[in-house]
Amino acid sequence: MGEVPHEAVVDLLGALSYAQLSGFEALAADAAMTPHLRAKLAFARMGVEMFHRCEQVGLRLRELGADHESAMAPFVTSVDAFHERTKPSDWLEGIVKAYVGDGIVRDFYSEMATHLDPANEAFVAQMLGQAGGAEAIVHEVREAIAGDARRSGRLALWARRIMGEAIHATQSVAVERDSLTALLVGGEPGSDLNEVGRMFARISAAHTVRMEALGLSA
Amino acid sequence: MGEVPHEAVVDLLGALSYAQLSGFEALAADAAMTPHLRAKLAFARMGVEMFHRCEQVGLRLRELGADHESAMAPFVTSVDAFHERTKPSDWLEGIVKAYVGDGIVRDFYSEMATHLDPANEAFVAQMLGQAGGAEAIVHEVREAIAGDARRSGRLALWARRIMGEAIHATQSVAVERDSLTALLVGGEPGSDLNEVGRMFARISAAHTVRMEALGLSA
Repeated sequence: MGEVPHEAVVDLLGALSYAQLSGFEALAADAAMTPHLRAKLAFARMGVEMFHRCEQVGLRLRELGADHESAMAPFVTSVDAFHERTKPSDWLEGIVKAYVGDGIVRDFYSEMATHLDPANEAFVAQMLGQAGGAEAIVHEVREAIAGDARRSGRLALWARRIMGEAIHATQSVAVERDSLTALLVGGEPGSDLNEVGRMFARISAAHTVRMEALGLSA
Repeated sequence: MGEVPHEAVVDLLGALSYAQLSGFEALAADAAMTPHLRAKLAFARMGVEMFHRCEQVGLRLRELGADHESAMAPFVTSVDAFHERTKPSDWLEGIVKAYVGDGIVRDFYSEMATHLDPANEAFVAQMLGQAGGAEAIVHEVREAIAGDARRSGRLALWARRIMGEAIHATQSVAVERDSLTALLVGGEPGSDLNEVGRMFARISAAHTVRMEALGLSA
């Protein structure tokens, strides 16, 4: 593998960081919509974990001599557009979005990070390997849809829409910057768009597993 | 000082905890409204600090054999009503509310805690003594109002309204439960409502100092 330019590392970390920051904001908004205190605390915890990841990436960027805010700035528009297009209408939609979206973001950046140098790859893998509270919310969703076929049908449709929008958003982020497009297609001689297709197939398969965990049909 | 009943301790910690949880939600919503990434991060950090305080109180409640959610539940209505009546229309209003409101909440609970047993008093004092990121936002507000008399006039009026609503809300919380009303008036023979008046005078004086820090007239 050729050397990944510094710019690509900074872009990847900047995009990842802003995804976590906006994920924090979305989860806090879900917590605010949630009437049950136990679930409210669970969603707030997951949001706070996301913010910690944003801060961890910020520290990493500074270690690399880059500015945290400048690194995030190019990705604000596409990430915000994702959230604008997927405004949940209640806390259940919010939390399904958080769970599904967080899973896709983690899978996507983990895949992208395999093209980085070993030290940065390890940093991203270690950070995204933390469960981050996502599993705790599965229980809340399962309990809310138990025995309610109409509600679970509605949420399954919603999750499918989130999946589509999240894939679209991650692709938008990747083509936002030439450096990330190069990362996405591997940046190596002989790499091609088939590999990109296979990557999204893997992300899609992982999504199906998460939907089963929630008790929703994918 | 007579012994403070267990119920009053649990109520005070429950009210304090829910104030921090809803403060977290409000600050995250402010962060989401904020276009500048540096300020967004500062507000998110302050919100996360509030959530940590909520969690700290939760642990303390469990140590005392009480349930975190049950302890918060009686105070949801009055705290939510405060936030409902003080919805900021932009990020500057949001952040002035957060700074002013957080100050009043900290002063109020610190005062209330002086009536608790030494161990619980120390716990509350230690927790509320942490700066919690509030000071970092003063800079953002000062910068935003510099040389803009109209904007600073509008924010000064807004801060005065927040002060009034926050005092009303803390009083509502205190009279919500007999145990807290007893704490508020000292719970001792000879204590009286004059002391309550003096307490609110002290909170009001501290508010004036904070307004000066922001560069707003109180």
